[in-house]
Amino acid sequence: MSEPAELRKVLVLYTGGTIGMKRNHQGVLVPAPDVLTAKIKTCPELHDLDLARIYSVRNHELITRVSSSNKAIVYQIREYHPLLDSSNMTPKEWVIIAKNIEENYNDFDGFVILSGTDTMAFTASALSFMFKNLQKPIIITGAQIPIFDNPSDAKNHILSALVFASCSDIPEVCVYFSNKLFRGNRVKKMSCSQLDCFDSPNYPVLAEIGFNCRIYRHNTLPRSERGHLMVCTNLCERVGILYIFPTLTRTQLLSFLEPTLEGVVLITYGAGNIPSHRQDLLDVLRNAVGRGVTVVSVTQCIKGSVGLYYETGKCLEEIGVISCYDMTVEAAYAKLVVVCGMVSQSEERAELMKQVFRGEMTIQH
Amino acid sequence: MSEPAELRKVLVLYTGGTIGMKRNHQGVLVPAPDVLTAKIKTCPELHDLDLARIYSVRNHELITRVSSSNKAIVYQIREYHPLLDSSNMTPKEWVIIAKNIEENYNDFDGFVILSGTDTMAFTASALSFMFKNLQKPIIITGAQIPIFDNPSDAKNHILSALVFASCSDIPEVCVYFSNKLFRGNRVKKMSCSQLDCFDSPNYPVLAEIGFNCRIYRHNTLPRSERGHLMVCTNLCERVGILYIFPTLTRTQLLSFLEPTLEGVVLITYGAGNIPSHRQDLLDVLRNAVGRGVTVVSVTQCIKGSVGLYYETGKCLEEIGVISCYDMTVEAAYAKLVVVCGMVSQSEERAELMKQVFRGEMTIQH
Amino acid sequence: MSEPAELRKVLVLYTGGTIGMKRNHQGVLVPAPDVLTAKIKTCPELHDLDLARIYSVRNHELITRVSSSNKAIVYQIREYHPLLDSSNMTPKEWVIIAKNIEENYNDFDGFVILSGTDTMAFTASALSFMFKNLQKPIIITGAQIPIFDNPSDAKNHILSALVFASCSDIPEVCVYFSNKLFRGNRVKKMSCSQLDCFDSPNYPVLAEIGFNCRIYRHNTLPRSERGHLMVCTNLCERVGILYIFPTLTRTQLLSFLEPTLEGVVLITYGAGNIPSHRQDLLDVLRNAVGRGVTVVSVTQCIKGSVGLYYETGKCLEEIGVISCYDMTVEAAYAKLVVVCGMVSQSEERAELMKQVFRGEMTIQH
Amino acid sequence: MSEPAELRKVLVLYTGGTIGMKRNHQGVLVPAPDVLTAKIKTCPELHDLDLARIYSVRNHELITRVSSSNKAIVYQIREYHPLLDSSNMTPKEWVIIAKNIEENYNDFDGFVILSGTDTMAFTASALSFMFKNLQKPIIITGAQIPIFDNPSDAKNHILSALVFASCSDIPEVCVYFSNKLFRGNRVKKMSCSQLDCFDSPNYPVLAEIGFNCRIYRHNTLPRSERGHLMVCTNLCERVGILYIFPTLTRTQLLSFLEPTLEGVVLITYGAGNIPSHRQDLLDVLRNAVGRGVTVVSVTQCIKGSVGLYYETGKCLEEIGVISCYDMTVEAAYAKLVVVCGMVSQSEERAELMKQVFRGEMTIQH
Repeated sequence: MSEPAELRKVLVLYTGGTIGMKRNHQGVLVPAPDVLTAKIKTCPELHDLDLARIYSVRNHELITRVSSSNKAIVYQIREYHPLLDSSNMTPKEWVIIAKNIEENYNDFDGFVILSGTDTMAFTASALSFMFKNLQKPIIITGAQIPIFDNPSDAKNHILSALVFASCSDIPEVCVYFSNKLFRGNRVKKMSCSQLDCFDSPNYPVLAEIGFNCRIYRHNTLPRSERGHLMVCTNLCERVGILYIFPTLTRTQLLSFLEPTLEGVVLITYGAGNIPSHRQDLLDVLRNAVGRGVTVVSVTQCIKGSVGLYYETGKCLEEIGVISCYDMTVEAAYAKLVVVCGMVSQSEERAELMKQVFRGEMTIQH
Repeated sequence: MSEPAELRKVLVLYTGGTIGMKRNHQGVLVPAPDVLTAKIKTCPELHDLDLARIYSVRNHELITRVSSSNKAIVYQIREYHPLLDSSNMTPKEWVIIAKNIEENYNDFDGFVILSGTDTMAFTASALSFMFKNLQKPIIITGAQIPIFDNPSDAKNHILSALVFASCSDIPEVCVYFSNKLFRGNRVKKMSCSQLDCFDSPNYPVLAEIGFNCRIYRHNTLPRSERGHLMVCTNLCERVGILYIFPTLTRTQLLSFLEPTLEGVVLITYGAGNIPSHRQDLLDVLRNAVGRGVTVVSVTQCIKGSVGLYYETGKCLEEIGVISCYDMTVEAAYAKLVVVCGMVSQSEERAELMKQVFRGEMTIQH
Repeated sequence: MSEPAELRKVLVLYTGGTIGMKRNHQGVLVPAPDVLTAKIKTCPELHDLDLARIYSVRNHELITRVSSSNKAIVYQIREYHPLLDSSNMTPKEWVIIAKNIEENYNDFDGFVILSGTDTMAFTASALSFMFKNLQKPIIITGAQIPIFDNPSDAKNHILSALVFASCSDIPEVCVYFSNKLFRGNRVKKMSCSQLDCFDSPNYPVLAEIGFNCRIYRHNTLPRSERGHLMVCTNLCERVGILYIFPTLTRTQLLSFLEPTLEGVVLITYGAGNIPSHRQDLLDVLRNAVGRGVTVVSVTQCIKGSVGLYYETGKCLEEIGVISCYDMTVEAAYAKLVVVCGMVSQSEERAELMKQVFRGEMTIQH
Repeated sequence: MSEPAELRKVLVLYTGGTIGMKRNHQGVLVPAPDVLTAKIKTCPELHDLDLARIYSVRNHELITRVSSSNKAIVYQIREYHPLLDSSNMTPKEWVIIAKNIEENYNDFDGFVILSGTDTMAFTASALSFMFKNLQKPIIITGAQIPIFDNPSDAKNHILSALVFASCSDIPEVCVYFSNKLFRGNRVKKMSCSQLDCFDSPNYPVLAEIGFNCRIYRHNTLPRSERGHLMVCTNLCERVGILYIFPTLTRTQLLSFLEPTLEGVVLITYGAGNIPSHRQDLLDVLRNAVGRGVTVVSVTQCIKGSVGLYYETGKCLEEIGVISCYDMTVEAAYAKLVVVCGMVSQSEERAELMKQVFRGEMTIQH
């Protein structure tokens, strides 16, 4: 092995998740603090002792390299205390992650976030909206099987996330999973049993690891050449998600929206429909919009877009419900959390919700 | 064409949906009453004038036959008044449909329901649970493009649904769409733009129309040889669906459950997880279960099953939340609506929810 | 229905295929001459009697329109005598088709070719290479089930092919099947049982019929603004295809190439490999290249490209075998047939084989 | 870690392939002898030093265990000399492999074969037919990226193959790749670029590694309780594959079959069609069948089955060409190689080709 020509630096934020869990006496997976980094040091593909010596990496640093590149990747892992099951992640944790990246933005070439998979789509979406003028890759990954298990998908995920974070120049928040790199605000966890559990049903993959690694540049966001990084950390927690179902009552809808909710994502039928015969529901929504609640609509379908093809959808538009087109539930919710934190006038919020921020939706005409 | 050897009779219930819609002056699709049957009479593949003469079919009847069979299908269409956009379908309409089938059960070989696609998975799931000892096929179909448009997927769907209803002997409530026959309580509308918009991600297809028509008998329910048809029409409307999200508040959860809800489907993270740190939410759920609310759990993922692999999922089981394994949201909700209508003790309800009724879930051990 | 604003004219060449077949006494499908047009006249979606009267279409013409457009399509069907099972199509038939289009090029807005599916990928590939400066759509389609059967995929295919031929402005030879429009030289018949039997595994679809019809303009070829249509009808039949297998003998290879073959497509292992230990085979190939045979290589895999990653592939390049990258077998063969007909020097042939003619391959570096 | 309760023994035959290749000075991958085992010894997931000490494994042995099982796997690797690129594998190598397994059959619980991917479908098919009354798993695997590269799919493949070989009780020759276990005589290499490059398009997977490992027992072959292992090592090399194309000449076909070929697989159009107008070709085939050549037919399509629906297919049956239904090219070829080695009468060969040996085809009626 010839000496790598160039060193790249990556900061890894380890927030928790299956990737570093261990089984308790009941066989249930629980977070295990202070053991992941030590484990990674024993994995030759993730920490190369020869390189560590050649480059005299410090004790808290790890180093690896990939065969297809002449760059070595030096990285350090910041473990969160306590480690979080991703089910427990909230906007507060998103802010912590964002601030950690902001503080270290100039010292690293890219960032990896290790997280649980359950809410990864929420986290990835939120971070994508929180960073403006991002010029470095932020790659979120995790695993379906803990790194302490054998076999595990954890090692390949960490390694590939490091590579994309250090060398890809993709100026986006991405999710890496099972040989594929996705736009963060487009992913959904599609399966709770399969290893290749993520997909972005309404947007193509950004890159793929195969016999060779391929980055599909026509799918990635362009690099904004001007403007320095801005991080929006003022998030609004008074945002909700409501799944429409046949027996939804006026009282349920009313109490869900009342009195403090500022934004809500309705997960509507098909191309954006709700029961149009239900004047009681429409009245509640109209009143909510009237008093300043930002109400947006996504579809219960996995693929496709909210449109205005039906009477039942048209009536939503007429009362001021905003179409999120082909956005995921997670992205629509996270965008609302960010937008409602950014501005306080409902007209401004509506205006921002209709704009494409980070490639998160495709507007249909 | 030799004369068909055998006549089969099908009753078609036309409840509404895109299949029979027309565009209004805004280009928006709206239900159009009293025109579908007349249109079908002009479609040679759906009404064969020669056969009509040979068999002297009555004025309100239609007749067709398929090439692969020596049977002719005589059918009549009962149009609902008013026609319903599927977004407006509720348990009340499910009962009407079920009663219509029950009243005509002995006079027909099978039944077709024409419906909108948006809530078709709800309707199909509900009907599957409402009929016990079903021995004749009930095939639900619809279209993405109205029959009045050219081209349209409506004609092939009606024809194939008639065939499966009359000749397949599949004793199940099924959904037919885009050359595939699915178990009704396993389907989801996956796309609001593509023509092949249905899938049953956790169960294989029951039949497929290709170069030949193939019925996969090992996937269909067995015919119950004994027991006559029973129809459960006492449905409970006090059932809801709640999508779990990071900023769900105690108040929201409480007011959603209070005071009259008898059953709720939680759409949980991953393999059945909710925020385990949130004692406030767990308390609300524990109290709800304690006072007799049936709380069940499905996953936000499209594929896979609720399991007990994580602390965050374990805590749900401990407070009495029932796993619906790999059931769809729609099937879990419809089963609750039926079960809560059937029995009133919460222990009995829990017991029934854990049983497999009509192949709607795969229990994992 | 308001009167259509514009008439479009399409010429349909009916060459044969399942689409117009009937069953003989053994139940075997055979071509049925002089009946397709009459059948189409009885299909309301393919021939609109009201429009025929309004526009006084002549007896040999048919007329239809689609809902999404204000254009009516007047078309005529030229039936080939005899009708051909697609298994019997050869370069001779390709030339007849091409000449028929050339003769009528100025009189029609687009062209539809009805053909069997078995060799449709060969025909579509060949035509794509035979037409230079094509500015009008040529849409090839067929069916898995005859139009005389009920149900059948034939009517929707003919209608949609007419629409793309008349209104899409796609300047390419395309295949339309099961709601998808493909580049002709990229398709493969993937299944002999399913209705959606075509795919273009190495290139995205050009258009899709869903709830709406979508043309993906970034995937279609650009219109060449200059240059008038040129049709290459001098084809070389001395071209073959050879599938590599473990026990291929020197004698077999030699006799396959000898003495008159001018071009051969080797269907090689994986990324373009043959047995590198077999000096006898390499010698035969080297000699063939030496005496002017054009030898090209495609992969036995459905997806992916011939590359130069292995010793076993490298040795092919060294003896002058030309990589067809990710071309289909059918496209590589058809391109050879056209190129060997166009020029006679082996160096020129090699040069042309390495160029991208009609988007048929993606060159890898 | 508690001590594993049980030891399982696996023999690994390393025949060559990308999995153990290194790049030469041109960047081309070439076999690298005598280094794979040493490399594996440095991979903690493939060789556990603690277990090695506990169980005092000998120097030539390796040991690992998987988290989901209480069994430890002791294995040894027999490296072939020379290592073979899979493009160079022939029936001779299949015999060597089969004999190696036969000689060691009683000493191990299962077998792993490391091989290149290009001809893996040939090798897997051949071995499946060569072993009769197999009661232990034989798992073939390989990699798209060498184990010496970082990242690589090699380690996970070796580990999972060891697990299925030692603990699954599947009495079949299987291919393991990218989290899926396939029946060996049903696989095809579908892609030369993607990591998940294998599929068995006409048969479901046998097992899948996901969040948990699932074996689909209804898809695996039953264990034959009686009969001891029989290995057929008398293979016939005078078997060929011929891909049908439009300009195939009588001379080519004749010289390909003449004078010594005993069996040939025709890769025919669609559902088993060849040019029925070509009496010259039919005559050659009829003569070949007449003088005892076993001629069988598979489809050029990836999915589906050879049938007798068309005149063009019917004529093949009439001259004695045997349908291989939905067999892969590779399986049909390998079965011919085995069958022609087993018996010498053409009637017997035909009879055997029509029987299902190891789940390799689905007979259609």
